[in-house]
Amino acid sequence: MVEKFDVLVVGAGFAGLSAAIYCARFNLKTLIVGNVWGGLIITTHVVENYPGYKSLSGYDLMQKFKEHVEYYNIPFWEDQIESIEKKREGKFFAKTMEGKEIEAKTLILATGTTRKNLNVPGEKEFENRGVSYCATCDAFLFKGKDVVVVGGSDSAAKEALLLSEHAKSVTVLVRSSFHPEPINGTRIAQRKNIKVLIGVEVKEIAGKEKVEKVILKNGKELIVQGVFIEVGHNPQTELAQGLGVNINEKKEIPIDRYSRTSTEGVFAAGDCVDTEWKQGIVSAAEGAHAANSVYNYLNEKGLLVKRNGK
Amino acid sequence: MVEKFDVLVVGAGFAGLSAAIYCARFNLKTLIVGNVWGGLIITTHVVENYPGYKSLSGYDLMQKFKEHVEYYNIPFWEDQIESIEKKREGKFFAKTMEGKEIEAKTLILATGTTRKNLNVPGEKEFENRGVSYCATCDAFLFKGKDVVVVGGSDSAAKEALLLSEHAKSVTVLVRSSFHPEPINGTRIAQRKNIKVLIGVEVKEIAGKEKVEKVILKNGKELIVQGVFIEVGHNPQTELAQGLGVNINEKKEIPIDRYSRTSTEGVFAAGDCVDTEWKQGIVSAAEGAHAANSVYNYLNEKGLLVKRNGK
Repeated sequence: MVEKFDVLVVGAGFAGLSAAIYCARFNLKTLIVGNVWGGLIITTHVVENYPGYKSLSGYDLMQKFKEHVEYYNIPFWEDQIESIEKKREGKFFAKTMEGKEIEAKTLILATGTTRKNLNVPGEKEFENRGVSYCATCDAFLFKGKDVVVVGGSDSAAKEALLLSEHAKSVTVLVRSSFHPEPINGTRIAQRKNIKVLIGVEVKEIAGKEKVEKVILKNGKELIVQGVFIEVGHNPQTELAQGLGVNINEKKEIPIDRYSRTSTEGVFAAGDCVDTEWKQGIVSAAEGAHAANSVYNYLNEKGLLVKRNGK
Repeated sequence: MVEKFDVLVVGAGFAGLSAAIYCARFNLKTLIVGNVWGGLIITTHVVENYPGYKSLSGYDLMQKFKEHVEYYNIPFWEDQIESIEKKREGKFFAKTMEGKEIEAKTLILATGTTRKNLNVPGEKEFENRGVSYCATCDAFLFKGKDVVVVGGSDSAAKEALLLSEHAKSVTVLVRSSFHPEPINGTRIAQRKNIKVLIGVEVKEIAGKEKVEKVILKNGKELIVQGVFIEVGHNPQTELAQGLGVNINEKKEIPIDRYSRTSTEGVFAAGDCVDTEWKQGIVSAAEGAHAANSVYNYLNEKGLLVKRNGK
């Protein structure tokens, strides 16, 4: 049986949940489909830059978003969209991995990103045996150990800061430029057990049962028990590509200020779009804009059904 | 004595406070100057559309923002900017009403809006004697009374909803189109003591000591004790105009997706800009973008001084 909605929101992070809240406030029949409540941010140890929340974990912040969504009784399917087709103006047809079928008048793609791999020998072999992609999840396993963080972004800096509270030493391995948020750069400079090496590249992760060392391209070896990889993200835009939505050279979805894509009826928000600077607050605003644009679109096309809401 | 800053944030609502939080995180020497902590939203009874906060008063939400700002020890001057001049690239000079002098490398204008007047006979005379611009402030004074709300926006709808909890009857007087957020439109339809009249205009507010009636242009009279005026807002962009920043026909400041104005070193965010749809979450994101753009600008121009922050 095909279930019908005014709008299908794909993704349940900052952008998707904010979009869903606003869609519900517009009395639109809304469905959220996502792998996981909250998106990637739930693995972040401390969030201090969502205005209005001074400091809390990514998980706790997303619990607040979840409560907000649940207040409007918006259905959430913990599932994944396998395919979407545009049948005609105002009619999209989607299938989920679990085999459910959805018809929706509009789409909001808030599909976020996936973490990039380093693609060096040893990375796969030692995953969960010293190689990790999430300091929040695994930092406590490295109490008193020596670890490296690979990457030069603010996310890498935050991983290093968290790890330095557990590990004996943290070495940040940066290929070209180290560019944390200044506040985190300062914190790193003040942390005695963090060292930053710039202009180095990992050649191999080696060991027997577990990680024992990292071999750099310059031939040096670092004796470590943990390798945290934070080398960026890939936008998840396969669904958009399948729909024929324009994509830029970074595989992001270009949007305008009102979260409209190149395809009528398809809106996008959050880390999968071409906004230069990715932030939770920015994603939430893009989600809100997407909802408003959906509402305007349905109005213009005469596709809006009046319903009584909460 | 002239006090020097990297960035002067003018305004202390969603946009200004969010901008200040981000500026502080960029380790910029930041000053906020504003009439009042929180901006216009603090007079709003219930805010249910700032993602992450299900339902709270505008005042309480802005207290959260205030705590967040105070966490970074950002100075806030409860004062008003009288004039700003651009001396040269990276050097603005501002004076406050209280006679303080400020030098800043960049500006973030988050000056918001002021409420529009109805401009009819009786409006001025009966202000605070039946005429009000703030249901949150004054609704309880009208317990058991008959009142009108003038305006067709979502703000007018929210005023009517709040008033209906106190007043005996609420009549919404709408000149042309009534366009609340659908969720509020539904709520109004369900509230028995709210009536909406569309296509009517107020000619005069009349009475002796206090408001006694509203006279419409069609000749009809409504016997009421309260008149709540919610007929829109004027962007406060005199400072921007004085600086030669481009302004559109609505007197708003056009910005790009990164909160840049037409003038180098001047950034703008929130209700004073040309974003079509004004929302707290959108203003907060624009403020964050403005801070990031300030940081990038100072970097590009070689105007950034490295400082140790929190």
